[in-house]
Amino acid sequence: MNRRMVIYILGQMLNAEALLLLLPTVVSLLYRETDIAVSFLLTILAALAAGFLCTFRKPTDRVIYAREGFAVVALSWLVLSIFGALPFWISGEIPSYIDCFFETVSGFTTTGASILTEVESLSRGILFWRSFTHWVGGMGVLVFVMTVIPLGDSRSMHIMRAEVPGPIVGKLVPRLKSTAKILYGIYILLTAIEVVLLLFGGMDLYDSLVHSFGTAGTGGFSVKNASIGAYQSPYIEWVVGTFMVLFGINFNLYFFLLLGKLRSVLQSEELRCYLGIILASTLIIAANIFSIYREVGTSLRHAFFQVSSIITTTGYATADFNEWPQLSRTILVMLMFFGACAGSTGGGLKTSRLLLYFRSMRRDLKRMLHPHSVEAIMLDGKPVSEETLNGANSFFLMYSTIACFCVLLLSIDGFDFETNFTAMAACLNNIGPGLGMVGPTGNFSAFSDFSKILLSFVMLFGRLEVFPMLLIFAPSVWRRR
Amino acid sequence: MNRRMVIYILGQMLNAEALLLLLPTVVSLLYRETDIAVSFLLTILAALAAGFLCTFRKPTDRVIYAREGFAVVALSWLVLSIFGALPFWISGEIPSYIDCFFETVSGFTTTGASILTEVESLSRGILFWRSFTHWVGGMGVLVFVMTVIPLGDSRSMHIMRAEVPGPIVGKLVPRLKSTAKILYGIYILLTAIEVVLLLFGGMDLYDSLVHSFGTAGTGGFSVKNASIGAYQSPYIEWVVGTFMVLFGINFNLYFFLLLGKLRSVLQSEELRCYLGIILASTLIIAANIFSIYREVGTSLRHAFFQVSSIITTTGYATADFNEWPQLSRTILVMLMFFGACAGSTGGGLKTSRLLLYFRSMRRDLKRMLHPHSVEAIMLDGKPVSEETLNGANSFFLMYSTIACFCVLLLSIDGFDFETNFTAMAACLNNIGPGLGMVGPTGNFSAFSDFSKILLSFVMLFGRLEVFPMLLIFAPSVWRRR
Repeated sequence: MNRRMVIYILGQMLNAEALLLLLPTVVSLLYRETDIAVSFLLTILAALAAGFLCTFRKPTDRVIYAREGFAVVALSWLVLSIFGALPFWISGEIPSYIDCFFETVSGFTTTGASILTEVESLSRGILFWRSFTHWVGGMGVLVFVMTVIPLGDSRSMHIMRAEVPGPIVGKLVPRLKSTAKILYGIYILLTAIEVVLLLFGGMDLYDSLVHSFGTAGTGGFSVKNASIGAYQSPYIEWVVGTFMVLFGINFNLYFFLLLGKLRSVLQSEELRCYLGIILASTLIIAANIFSIYREVGTSLRHAFFQVSSIITTTGYATADFNEWPQLSRTILVMLMFFGACAGSTGGGLKTSRLLLYFRSMRRDLKRMLHPHSVEAIMLDGKPVSEETLNGANSFFLMYSTIACFCVLLLSIDGFDFETNFTAMAACLNNIGPGLGMVGPTGNFSAFSDFSKILLSFVMLFGRLEVFPMLLIFAPSVWRRR
Repeated sequence: MNRRMVIYILGQMLNAEALLLLLPTVVSLLYRETDIAVSFLLTILAALAAGFLCTFRKPTDRVIYAREGFAVVALSWLVLSIFGALPFWISGEIPSYIDCFFETVSGFTTTGASILTEVESLSRGILFWRSFTHWVGGMGVLVFVMTVIPLGDSRSMHIMRAEVPGPIVGKLVPRLKSTAKILYGIYILLTAIEVVLLLFGGMDLYDSLVHSFGTAGTGGFSVKNASIGAYQSPYIEWVVGTFMVLFGINFNLYFFLLLGKLRSVLQSEELRCYLGIILASTLIIAANIFSIYREVGTSLRHAFFQVSSIITTTGYATADFNEWPQLSRTILVMLMFFGACAGSTGGGLKTSRLLLYFRSMRRDLKRMLHPHSVEAIMLDGKPVSEETLNGANSFFLMYSTIACFCVLLLSIDGFDFETNFTAMAACLNNIGPGLGMVGPTGNFSAFSDFSKILLSFVMLFGRLEVFPMLLIFAPSVWRRR
């Protein structure tokens, strides 16, 4: 492995994080939280110092391959979380460093699982940083930094493949740098529109910003204990609900929309499937919870909000779905694994993988009857390579294996099966709340330190789609070239 | 499809079932349960009548292909269960026919899940039939009947592949008929040895027989409410525990043992892995439950018995593991999915598939780093074909999909998540008891009729390894040739 180059890029990431930390520092100063601003400044200094150590000698060999791509991505996310946890810890607002680390990983991976039993007593600056990590993690910070470091397209592609979720990663325009810029442009634009719409709904600027960050990254951290439900505003719930759905759509489709290619957007099989699942789940759950809310509008609103929140893996809540009938709860658990579209900020298996799985099962059944038939699996009218299919299959196997071991190791803490299973599902799929003890009104604080570290890694496994994180545990990755 | 031939074989199956029903009839007469004997005789008449209708015109075209093989196997198991449920219903010992059907499917598929809230008040004849279905279903009844119907090896192979569990089905000797005879010989011999050993332990002949049937088929129906725990005999627990492990081993290995090929038995990677999992799980659980039993021997015995019972998918109990610590319960849930060896009477994913999954994940990770490497996956020193691997992968996908839909549909009944999840796991993997309401001291009676029919099909999906049962729902299977 080209270790020098990996360390160099890690250093660049730390410098980038120092830059990002300036924003919450400014927020702290605006709210006159001087001691909080100091904790941010100390973190910035630490990140810059570490960044300098990693970058002061430029590597002569700048060539990176797949293994360097995976290592850089996995280690960057770890290092960003280790440093990103410092403000929580230095400020003393979260006393245990492991809790700080869990909260930061949960932020960057856009999970939104929290160890905080209540959030409203925390400072403005800290809560801003907590939500800002969602926004940074949503689109992936490496792809952004790649636009700054001159690496060349074929090299950056290794990093993009490792960081951008979904079975197939394509470029929108010939140059990767321009692709990244377009994607970030769309991301910023959509976030800005949501902020404006929330301001219209009577939210103040601070709340609009943090909740837009949480929606955009499909994260789910709120500054209210009752999450979006605290605002008691159907308008705000519809806005956030709709934007969660929007941020769960493949960003490439927005690019096509900007180019006026409306037809290719409407013909996207993933989009149709994704919206179909949302519609069907909303209707079933609305009917199922009607006996609680006794009003069609309210039932539909709560059902839509929760479905949209879970399938996009955001995790905001307007109702305690832990108290809903078992059918609704089970549908939500299923949606946790479904996840949003590939190439969006959402987690989970992704709708396009579900489509691939479904079509490959159908083909395998056909092959049982006609052993010699040869048929390619199609997606959006294009044949899918067997390599992509194998990749999706082995992804599913590894996903299931990690899920299995996670539930097993969590069970050492002795909580009930539902809590352990949904805590795993909520972290692996980057959602946030689960059922039982980790339901929307609960939190992860009661887990042991071991479980918190385990779940932090499970969140990273989920966000980076397993492979990069798994590979850094393989000794052969670290061998010198 | 060659419908005539499918119907003809179904008729032969019904005739065979009529023959099998003679045994419980005799048992009923021996215990002077005349009305029970009458219900068996009525069932025999019904089966013979239906059998005659299906077989009186011999098909001229005896050619069958894969699709006929799948259809014959799936339909046979359905038809055998429909008729096999009649004695329970005619005798009035189980009033609802859906309950009778559930109980019979549970018997034939060697699941051992019961809707009976207590069993000791049932007649001897009925309980004998209930346990005998385990023994019949364990080795697969079609393979046996195939030795009687002259079909030719290549044709019977289609049926054997569909009925015998595991990713790879091989013949022991060149002729399939002889292979089936050898397998049944080993099956009968092992069962007989267990009967004798249980008699030594002070069990009466009747109890020894039914519990040996339950062990041999890895079923789990008992004639005692407290299952094997009722005998309060460590000797009996060790005998049954050991024989469960023995019946979970690939029967081909016993054949090699008979041929004196001890080395190839000891080198079987599946066997080593299977015994390794049993050893590790037993030790961890024994340590975990030591605080309850406060004695090393007792903890080890209970741990071994339950591990052996669950991994072989038998389902006998000597302790209420529903009350054990969460770690032990979660290990048992994991073992439910692991299952026993391929080519044994046990269910679940099978140890050899786990090995294939593990090795294919390792290869996929390697390929991520070295995209051009070509490496075959080995099992027992032989390369595994990509076709077998793809089959194992699509099996896992379908297994997971069925599991997912089963939990979803069960949740309509409104029971808790643990009950639904483990009821699915217990039925799909043909185990019997789960956790929560369906724990070892509970039963399936509280589920709705819809859920009972659903779970019956899930048991059949599990026993026949998904494909045959799924294919009979495909219209193209039924198209005339």
